[in-house]
Amino acid sequence: MADSPNSDLESLSPLELFERVTEQGEKVRALKAGKAPKDEIDVAVRRLLSLKLSYKTTTGQDYQAGLPPKDLVFINNGTAKEEDEDLVDPWNVQTSNAKGVDYDKLIVRFGSSKIDTDLINRIERATGQKPHHFLRRGIFFSHRDMDQVLDAYENKKPFYLYTGRGPSSQAMHVGHLIPFMFTKWLQEVFDVPLVIQLTDDEKYLWKDMTVEKAYEYARENAKDIIACGFDINKTFIFSDLDYLGTSAGFYKNIVKVQKHVTFNQVKGIFGFTDSDCIGKISFPAIQAAPSFSSSFPQIFNGKENIQCLIPCAIDQDPYFRMTRDVAPRIGQPKPALLHSVFFPALQGAQTKMSASDPNSSIFLTDTPKQIKTKINKHAFSGGRDTIEEHRKYGGNCDVDVSFMYLTFFLEDDDRLEQLKQAYTSGELLTGELKKVLIETMQPLVAAHQERRKQVTDEIVKQFMTPRKLAFEF
Amino acid sequence: MADSPNSDLESLSPLELFERVTEQGEKVRALKAGKAPKDEIDVAVRRLLSLKLSYKTTTGQDYQAGLPPKDLVFINNGTAKEEDEDLVDPWNVQTSNAKGVDYDKLIVRFGSSKIDTDLINRIERATGQKPHHFLRRGIFFSHRDMDQVLDAYENKKPFYLYTGRGPSSQAMHVGHLIPFMFTKWLQEVFDVPLVIQLTDDEKYLWKDMTVEKAYEYARENAKDIIACGFDINKTFIFSDLDYLGTSAGFYKNIVKVQKHVTFNQVKGIFGFTDSDCIGKISFPAIQAAPSFSSSFPQIFNGKENIQCLIPCAIDQDPYFRMTRDVAPRIGQPKPALLHSVFFPALQGAQTKMSASDPNSSIFLTDTPKQIKTKINKHAFSGGRDTIEEHRKYGGNCDVDVSFMYLTFFLEDDDRLEQLKQAYTSGELLTGELKKVLIETMQPLVAAHQERRKQVTDEIVKQFMTPRKLAFEF
Repeated sequence: MADSPNSDLESLSPLELFERVTEQGEKVRALKAGKAPKDEIDVAVRRLLSLKLSYKTTTGQDYQAGLPPKDLVFINNGTAKEEDEDLVDPWNVQTSNAKGVDYDKLIVRFGSSKIDTDLINRIERATGQKPHHFLRRGIFFSHRDMDQVLDAYENKKPFYLYTGRGPSSQAMHVGHLIPFMFTKWLQEVFDVPLVIQLTDDEKYLWKDMTVEKAYEYARENAKDIIACGFDINKTFIFSDLDYLGTSAGFYKNIVKVQKHVTFNQVKGIFGFTDSDCIGKISFPAIQAAPSFSSSFPQIFNGKENIQCLIPCAIDQDPYFRMTRDVAPRIGQPKPALLHSVFFPALQGAQTKMSASDPNSSIFLTDTPKQIKTKINKHAFSGGRDTIEEHRKYGGNCDVDVSFMYLTFFLEDDDRLEQLKQAYTSGELLTGELKKVLIETMQPLVAAHQERRKQVTDEIVKQFMTPRKLAFEF
Repeated sequence: MADSPNSDLESLSPLELFERVTEQGEKVRALKAGKAPKDEIDVAVRRLLSLKLSYKTTTGQDYQAGLPPKDLVFINNGTAKEEDEDLVDPWNVQTSNAKGVDYDKLIVRFGSSKIDTDLINRIERATGQKPHHFLRRGIFFSHRDMDQVLDAYENKKPFYLYTGRGPSSQAMHVGHLIPFMFTKWLQEVFDVPLVIQLTDDEKYLWKDMTVEKAYEYARENAKDIIACGFDINKTFIFSDLDYLGTSAGFYKNIVKVQKHVTFNQVKGIFGFTDSDCIGKISFPAIQAAPSFSSSFPQIFNGKENIQCLIPCAIDQDPYFRMTRDVAPRIGQPKPALLHSVFFPALQGAQTKMSASDPNSSIFLTDTPKQIKTKINKHAFSGGRDTIEEHRKYGGNCDVDVSFMYLTFFLEDDDRLEQLKQAYTSGELLTGELKKVLIETMQPLVAAHQERRKQVTDEIVKQFMTPRKLAFEF
């Protein structure tokens, strides 16, 4: 195929091809409208047909004007979501299944790759460390290009970690810790720099909130993040509202991304409408830009080509699919990704938790008594209606929220397996399983509170000051 | 009317009213769709009708869904431009009239006010200085709220000047100097701080140009601007690409504007489409933000309420109509404006000049010989076809580009009047009028070149360093 007239098209992304077809279509229309010579129109039409063919070959879909390729089409615009599919985007997660979202289907739909045993073993070999239980238990279940990160790492090429949080309120719940706990582990075993974005500008744009309030939440949330134990010499935490006005490189990358993404694209990916404010419409570029090391000249010495690895919940993937599409067009490497499942609400796995509903999860500010009450009162049970039935038929770990929470927070594999068997067989009752969860969460939250108390405003300021980290580039 | 149910609506701008109607319409639809109780729907419908009435009273137009009020509708989207109207927006100026754009009509269409003799006299009284010939000759012809600026000035309240330039190429022409020459005069007679924005990010977004090139043009253009004679102690020149990454206040104002402007609005005002990149769509907020003093905390000591006055060509007005609509909603004063006419191309007043066509104007880099040749060869003449006819019927100053240029650059009122009479009567021939223009422009451009030579990189750096100016706030 190297000599075919379309050989130049093979390196194009689906979105680039989509744009080429659109442009060529416009050209043909303009030629026809301008009554151009017939042979000129013919050449343009042939090129259009050939582009449409390349598009179909690459994407498996027919070109449709105004509808970007499906791997970029996101599902909250309704049209691309099939009847029985889960709804997953940065603002919504909905499923009708008590077991939660069907993650295998999501991998196919999003076009990412499953984190399989081979990859987990490879991470173990590369780092010399036992893989984190989030990996062993499929909590981080999907990735993009993690093998390339490992290739580079094995060849002593540097990479860095990027994760973040939208600081929507002062109260964080235990589910918010998942990406940070995992990122902390990655930072330790790979010994790499880490940047953490607090999208206070996003929260200002989306919520009824002042700029000052959003920034205040960012700094409060930073305390909880720091309390996860990040290394101050290897970690830079930043608020967008703050850092955009202090970085020589960040805005340049933002404007580069903004030049290469159209409204049509963000409409397709994020479901924005004409009534949305221009701040929302251009925001995705601000979440994209930290994927490029030149956004942090103080850390990377202005180097542009450092590989980025982003651990995040799968609902953030649309931002980074967009980023990966743009990256080669602005001469930057595509960020790699590690995706986690969603943390279930106490009431069941059908929805993601909400920081605005105090009973939907265990919050980092809860007292031991609140934790006990919440779990006993609200944690959805997979047990049977009566003790007799439970003893006879056993409980269902797949829908039991207490058991799900234990898969996140009980590190002991053997103990977890014992609990599973005992619950499934009916030997262990719901109340007993809840007791194990209470005894797991109470010290975990108390220890977090203790560490958070140590995080002074001065420490927050240090983490949030743009500076060189303990690495040479 | 103070007790009428709509008294809260009287303070709303046409655009705010438009949004209220739109929201209420959506509410009514939602109530109907949700089969709400009839009396609830009735209340909502009555409110909708009352809002529509207020809208009609305020704007003189019927509400039309999706069509923002006409004083905000800009004309390059085609629909709002009438058959014989001139096309004027930040990227296009077109008229079929050899005398140029009909500025009286533009004032009515844009909803601005004419700069009349009363206002000019008032400026003279306030400053104790003879008004600039750009004011006396109607080159700055339109304004918004200049009387309020003078009220404040007379009450010893401070204001500041804001103007700018899109640095699209290294070569600036004499027309580009108009706003800067006038701004320099305003700075001198009012003794106020001045900020000059170089929208290198805009040029990167609109043109096929790298970020680095756009920034380079910005610094080159800064030299020509500085050569106009601005006071280094009272003037801050900034590139967006540069300043956005060094200012604590600029991005915060940008994001505030971005929250309060929808895609529908920028579509109406600037004619953006779904195929435009999100950078273009959100850019208007970046040109808006310097209208608020808190974008320059280093100059205004963080003060938010300092009045801004913007001298600019009338084609930039759409940005500031948008800004003025947003300002009260983000707690900021509306910027005042002084609008200039367009500088005509040598070939005639039907179009604005283009920096990309070297023969369309006199460039600041032209040699005396080039100036002579261009004027003799290209300056559109209002003279007659033969000397005999010219002597008999006289020339037409209204369409003669040499005469137009002299109204811009020949400061001596008496001389200009003599030339006008002599040319109109036929006494003065086209070649003779051109000779006067050549003799006016050659020393003017040479003097500019001489001053520009003195502008070192070090001086540019000083002008472009965020710093306190020689004022206390």
